[in-house]
Amino acid sequence: MSTREEQKHRTRTTILRIAAEEFDERGYAAVSLNDIAARLHVTKGTVYFHFPSKSALALAVVDTYVARWSALQQEMTRLHLTGLSALVWLSHQVAVGYRDDPGVRAPLRLMRESAVIDGDLPTPFVPWIKTVAQHVVEAQQQGHVRDDVDANIIAWQVVASFFGAQELSHQLSSRGDLTDRVTTMWQLFLPGIMAPGVALPDLTPPL
Amino acid sequence: MSTREEQKHRTRTTILRIAAEEFDERGYAAVSLNDIAARLHVTKGTVYFHFPSKSALALAVVDTYVARWSALQQEMTRLHLTGLSALVWLSHQVAVGYRDDPGVRAPLRLMRESAVIDGDLPTPFVPWIKTVAQHVVEAQQQGHVRDDVDANIIAWQVVASFFGAQELSHQLSSRGDLTDRVTTMWQLFLPGIMAPGVALPDLTPPL
Repeated sequence: MSTREEQKHRTRTTILRIAAEEFDERGYAAVSLNDIAARLHVTKGTVYFHFPSKSALALAVVDTYVARWSALQQEMTRLHLTGLSALVWLSHQVAVGYRDDPGVRAPLRLMRESAVIDGDLPTPFVPWIKTVAQHVVEAQQQGHVRDDVDANIIAWQVVASFFGAQELSHQLSSRGDLTDRVTTMWQLFLPGIMAPGVALPDLTPPL
Repeated sequence: MSTREEQKHRTRTTILRIAAEEFDERGYAAVSLNDIAARLHVTKGTVYFHFPSKSALALAVVDTYVARWSALQQEMTRLHLTGLSALVWLSHQVAVGYRDDPGVRAPLRLMRESAVIDGDLPTPFVPWIKTVAQHVVEAQQQGHVRDDVDANIIAWQVVASFFGAQELSHQLSSRGDLTDRVTTMWQLFLPGIMAPGVALPDLTPPL
C-alpha cells in the first residue's frame, strides 16, 4: 500500500473501532455519525467518505466480527480441537472477547437490533446454534455424548444459556465473572448429555 | 371512586398500557411522551398531568410489574407450591406473561436500560435469582435436590438460561416456542442437581 492508502486504511480502522465502542455502549438508534466524527476530531465528511450512512457503518462493524469468527474457527482447526473440547474452547474464547472487546459486543448488539437497521445483517444466534450442533454431533460420533440427545435442541439451549450468562454478568458484575460462569454452565450441562463413564473435558477458563 | 376519579384512573391505566407497548417495542431512549399522547389522541398535557416526566412514567411501568410479581408469589402460596414444583410453575407463568404481555416485557427491558433512566429502578435479575435460590433450598430441605448443590450458583444459571431462552425465542420464533424451551431447560438442568431416585416434577407447559 502507498502511504496515502495506508493512511486511509488506518482512518477506516479507527472509525470502525470508535463506532464499535459507541454502538456497544448506546445501541444503534442513539448513535450518530456526528458523534463518531466528534470523538475522532475529524469532520463528518471524513466519516462519510468511508461510510456513506450509519447503516453502512453498522454493517461494516458486523463484517469485522464475521471475519473474526472465521479466524476463530480456523484457529480451532489448527489446534485439532473437536467435539466437546472444541465447544468448551470456543465458548471461553467468545467469553473473553465479549468481556474485553467492544469489537465483539457491538456486532452482537447490532444483530439483535437489526429491525431498526437498513440492510441485511446476519440473523443473531443462528450461526452459533449451527456451530454448537455440529460439535455436539462430532462428540456423539466420538462416543462422548449419548446418541439419544437431539443436537439441535441442545445447541439452542447452550446458546441461550451462554447469551443469558453474558447479559447477567454484564449487568451484575461488569463481566468480571463471565468466564467462571461459562465453566459452571458446562459443569451443569455436560453430565446430563454425556455418555456414561466419559470424563468431562478440561473446563478451566483462560485468564 | 367518583365518576371523575374513575375517569382519571382509567386514563392513567391506559397511559401505562400504551407506554408499556412503546417501551417494549422501541426501548426507553426512542420513546417520547409526545408519541404516547399521539397514540392516545390526547394532548401532551394530559400525559404530563399523570406523569411529570418520561422517567416517572418508566418507573410507574416498572411498579405495575413489581405488583404483578408479588401477586404471582401470593398465588403460588395459595396453590401450596414449594421447591421444584414452585420453580417450574413460576417459570412457566413468567414465560406465558413474557410471550403475551408487553406489561411484562417492558419493565424487564427498562430495568436493563436503567443506566439511561433517572431514578431508582430495581436491579434486573437479582430478585429472580433470590427467589430461585429460595426454592432450591426448599427443594434441598425436601430431599429433592442434592445437598452439595450451591443454591445461589444454580439460581444464577437458571435465571441466565431463562433470560437467554426468552431472547432467542423472541428473535428467532416471535416467542411461539418459549414455553416448550423452558420445559427443555428444566429437562436439562434438573437431572444434574436432583437427589438420586427422585422423580422429575410435572414439566408440562401451560397453553
